[in-house]
Amino acid sequence: MNYCSVCATPVTKKIPAGDNRLRFVCDSCQTIHYHNPKIVAGCIPEWGDQILLCRRAIEPKSGLWTFPAGFMEIGESTEQAAVRETFEEAQAQVERICLFAVLSLPHIGQAYLVFRGPMHSPDFGIGEESLEVRLFSLAEIPWDQIAFPVVKDALRRYVDDVTRGEFQVHVASLSDRLT
Amino acid sequence: MNYCSVCATPVTKKIPAGDNRLRFVCDSCQTIHYHNPKIVAGCIPEWGDQILLCRRAIEPKSGLWTFPAGFMEIGESTEQAAVRETFEEAQAQVERICLFAVLSLPHIGQAYLVFRGPMHSPDFGIGEESLEVRLFSLAEIPWDQIAFPVVKDALRRYVDDVTRGEFQVHVASLSDRLT
Repeated sequence: MNYCSVCATPVTKKIPAGDNRLRFVCDSCQTIHYHNPKIVAGCIPEWGDQILLCRRAIEPKSGLWTFPAGFMEIGESTEQAAVRETFEEAQAQVERICLFAVLSLPHIGQAYLVFRGPMHSPDFGIGEESLEVRLFSLAEIPWDQIAFPVVKDALRRYVDDVTRGEFQVHVASLSDRLT
Repeated sequence: MNYCSVCATPVTKKIPAGDNRLRFVCDSCQTIHYHNPKIVAGCIPEWGDQILLCRRAIEPKSGLWTFPAGFMEIGESTEQAAVRETFEEAQAQVERICLFAVLSLPHIGQAYLVFRGPMHSPDFGIGEESLEVRLFSLAEIPWDQIAFPVVKDALRRYVDDVTRGEFQVHVASLSDRLT
């Protein structure tokens, strides 16, 4: 950020009165420009004992696998964002999705909200941001070709829960070593 | 947003290639300025059968009651944000906090992540953004003086869970009628 988005004056970095963090502040119109973490909403779509993964067609990590996930938009709920991303990336419809994990990535200002839920039917397709979409049994998950450590972390927790036969809502923070 | 924060050129609202939503776009440097929902992290601090609430000293809803909550910052996890807000607003330390609710407010682009957890000690105080901080039994909650409908919704769910004797993680979306 170089300029105030309200009045185009160059911004300076300072701690506003009553605050304790450096913010971009406009000395002309006094606007404080806050930057906050973004929510990535994702879903592990289930069809029987299988889950649906997508091979990314876009950078970063083009060519590697993930479950459908993307930035939540204003105007939707977290669940709606997860359902939308599942349809956009894998052309699959999920229903009755449950929150599965809240995984913070503090160093890059993201929080993943990962849901899981059954597919409405075995129909799916290749969304614009995907190269390939397919169902995997848990034994087939391509662990060495997963796009992001946070996705791998969520999938490991998922496999553990399925193995143990009980789902919980996981809340964790991943250090920069892992992302 | 009137001007590009990168190069100070006036922005226009358009749907970028490969996108399906209106964004602020700079026609000079081509930056797309995304606006995404913000996370409000909060905590219901527990001391025995009581919970700690704060009377807001700032607008909006100055003078009304809430549990500690505020915007998550880059560089922290959702739990750390909830713990920080609890200390800033109520000078109380909470430990072993659990996720209690994920409540989306689509129309204002916010998602509340509400935790609950025991206070480390009965010590608390009046933070800068509070007029008054006190412990309430669940029967004493000032329902007609709660700052925001989303806070009231979370507290109602909390009281229901305590009454039923079992906590769950609530995921819901609140319409604009309720916020």
